[in-house]
This record gives sequence, C-alpha cells and structure tokens, in this order.
Amino acid sequence: MEKTKTIVRIAGKDYTICGTESAEYIHRVALRVNEKFKEIKSANPDLNNIQLAMLTSINLADEYLKMKDELEMTKKELEKLTPKPGVATPRFGDNK
Amino acid sequence: MEKTKTIVRIAGKDYTICGTESAEYIHRVALRVNEKFKEIKSANPDLNNIQLAMLTSINLADEYLKMKDELEMTKKELEKLTPKPGVATPRFGDNK
Repeated sequence: MEKTKTIVRIAGKDYTICGTESAEYIHRVALRVNEKFKEIKSANPDLNNIQLAMLTSINLADEYLKMKDELEMTKKELEKLTPKPGVATPRFGDNK
Repeated sequence: MEKTKTIVRIAGKDYTICGTESAEYIHRVALRVNEKFKEIKSANPDLNNIQLAMLTSINLADEYLKMKDELEMTKKELEKLTPKPGVATPRFGDNK
C-alpha cells in the first residue's frame, strides 16, 4: 500500500505524519486533536504542553472506549434482529 | 454528580485526573494511553516526549474516527432492520 507523508499543525507545532491514509483524512484527524488540545488548554491554562498533550490523549482514549462500548451494544442489537441462516422467516404471499 | 480524583501513571509520570467516572474506568483509559505511547515510542525511539504524546493523540483520534464511522454504519443497518411503529409486521398464526 502506498504511504503518504503529511505535515499537520497541532498546538502551533508541525508534525510529519506517515501513513497509508489520504492527506485529507490525516488532516481531519489532526483537526480533532487540535480542537481537543485547545479545549483542554482553556480549561487548564497552568499546565505545560506535555501535560496538555497527555490529557488530550486521555480524553481521546476515554471517548474511544465509550464509543467502543456503544458499538459493541449496537452490534449485539443488530445480531438479535438479523435473520439466522436456515431459519424460515414469514413472508407476504407465502400463506395461501 | 460526584467527582473522583485519580492518579494515573503514563510514560513514567503521574497525572491527576478529575472526573465523574470511577477510578477503575480512569485506570482503564490510562492503560490504553500508556500502551499506545509505548507502542509509538518503540517505533520512533528518536522522538521526544511531547512529540510522542502528540503522535499518541493522533493515533487515538484516528482509531476514534474509524470507530465512529463503523458505529454510524452499524446504526444505519440496525435502523433498516428495526420495525417501524404503525407498520404491520406479518406474524405466524395471523393468516387463516
């Protein structure tokens, strides 16, 4: 798979990101990190950049884990409603 | 809601986390950040801690966005299969 090299700006510093994703997607990811970083900085103006970056990571991991739990629950719901192979399902027009 | 204050250790440093979540959950989140940080550090041993923390954030945000897309697709699938209110669904025994 082809690798892309993209420079993104987070908290006033440039970071070179290498990945298989499109540059557009990498910018979307960086935008989210930048927003979260700024949000945490405005709530904790006395912290230094490393502390802010770690708190950003913690907040993003928190959102990830909550979404993971929601995804698992949604998948379980979906599984319950998905017809099992080999089990006859009633259909209109089959009942005369 | 009651706030908890929990100290977690990431990349050899202690961070005090205040939140409404349980201490157990906060440790679960910190563990994930710590694992991701170590993974990135071993792949990029020349980067400093702030760069590593930012890359950790970027990786976590990437996973979050991918999971968000998956959750949206799963929810759409679920919506398709969920019976709409007011629409009669065929049942066994109703067709004589």
